[in-house]
Amino acid sequence: MTVNNDAASAIVVDADSGFAHPAIDAGFDLLIESAKKNGCAAMSVRNSYNCGVLGFHTERIAQAGMTGLGFTNAPASIMPVGGNKSIIGTNPFSVAVPDGKGGVAFVLDQSASVVAKSEIKMHAQAGKSIPEGWAYDPDGKPTTDADAAMKGSMAPVGGYKGFGAGLLVEIFAAVMSGATLSQDASPFAGTAGGPPRTGQFFFAASPDVFSPDVFADRIQTLTSSIVAQEGAHLPGSGRVTAREAHEANGVGVSAALLEKIQAI
Amino acid sequence: MTVNNDAASAIVVDADSGFAHPAIDAGFDLLIESAKKNGCAAMSVRNSYNCGVLGFHTERIAQAGMTGLGFTNAPASIMPVGGNKSIIGTNPFSVAVPDGKGGVAFVLDQSASVVAKSEIKMHAQAGKSIPEGWAYDPDGKPTTDADAAMKGSMAPVGGYKGFGAGLLVEIFAAVMSGATLSQDASPFAGTAGGPPRTGQFFFAASPDVFSPDVFADRIQTLTSSIVAQEGAHLPGSGRVTAREAHEANGVGVSAALLEKIQAI
Repeated sequence: MTVNNDAASAIVVDADSGFAHPAIDAGFDLLIESAKKNGCAAMSVRNSYNCGVLGFHTERIAQAGMTGLGFTNAPASIMPVGGNKSIIGTNPFSVAVPDGKGGVAFVLDQSASVVAKSEIKMHAQAGKSIPEGWAYDPDGKPTTDADAAMKGSMAPVGGYKGFGAGLLVEIFAAVMSGATLSQDASPFAGTAGGPPRTGQFFFAASPDVFSPDVFADRIQTLTSSIVAQEGAHLPGSGRVTAREAHEANGVGVSAALLEKIQAI
Repeated sequence: MTVNNDAASAIVVDADSGFAHPAIDAGFDLLIESAKKNGCAAMSVRNSYNCGVLGFHTERIAQAGMTGLGFTNAPASIMPVGGNKSIIGTNPFSVAVPDGKGGVAFVLDQSASVVAKSEIKMHAQAGKSIPEGWAYDPDGKPTTDADAAMKGSMAPVGGYKGFGAGLLVEIFAAVMSGATLSQDASPFAGTAGGPPRTGQFFFAASPDVFSPDVFADRIQTLTSSIVAQEGAHLPGSGRVTAREAHEANGVGVSAALLEKIQAI
């Protein structure tokens, strides 16, 4: 693994086909220090792997008092609108925002597809059809057949604008970081094709540099205007609630899974 | 107007309630120089105004050889999903990517709403109803009545993920830049409420720092894989075609509009 910080606001990490988490860790402190000192900084990670929940990483940036923006790519599963070949992965972006008082205001983390691919897999395994609008078959036609969808493509959320959001992610996580493009990446599961060598890209920017006078007030007004609306909620609030419940009550797993874990 | 560059990778502009374009111009060279030298840089603009086509500004970043990401906010017209009060504007983001050979690969520029508000205005002025899925009435209920939609809210593209994309923009263009939040901004048209004092935020990152070895190859592979698919197209390609036609043949305007322009 290598970490290069020759340019003051750039942390360039090569994960050497290892896991994403230690590669992100290797550059993380430099990213925060540089953003604090220079106002903003970016960290790229190439030859990496699935980084799990992207918001886990951007939240750490917000916990350090910076606004964090993150991108990660994945093996291709979304076609451009009008096309018939998957070009980008479900490519999520995440933004995490500090509250200006030492805490985190919220963490937004969303993929470019209508649903997660795991949703379609569960329907296929259960022999169930999928709702209209979730996916396309290998010929690029809308399908409710989960098996055809698994071989085809995920529907981008909101049509061409969903593909656009995923393309934004591809530009930073793969093209800028010099990682493998989604269309050339081997699957995350299994060893076929060797390591996927996908990538991540993070921006960190300092509220203390850009808006020290009004940042805390603005983020407070924005978030309270959303939560004040009955039926509306902040992005990621479901995850926060679930995390608190898990910390208090533990995580429920099946006996079969627990046995598997204990065997490992 | 003030431009602050105390932190090496931060250009902090206050437009002093003037137009956006000269404010962006005032910091633009510093943004490019800083990104080139430090790997990445960001420029915020507060107390500004509608910056017109956001992609115009990010394209200039790409023309300078940097990958540009831009955000701009606007008076509120989109409610959070499940809510009944508009919080964010149609808040577009734009990413512009150099081709690594001195040119621009493409410019993506998309708003957070299903359609532009001007589309709904045209339907209202023509006394026509609007298609389902474009907008909500003032009570937050879906509507096909263009007048009710003008008083209500625009539908975010793809539901809560569209609202999420607009919220990402709000975080940078308003909260990080210290501009007026969309929900507190006066209209762009007319003088009611005084200057809107909205904002912009731009990131510029250098391919020469992050991926000098493979950038040109990756962007070439990505874009050619999209254009090779019959029926698919690169973001912004329609604008490029229109621009070339306009440069060759001029721009068609009505005699009435031409008279107005000449009178000014």
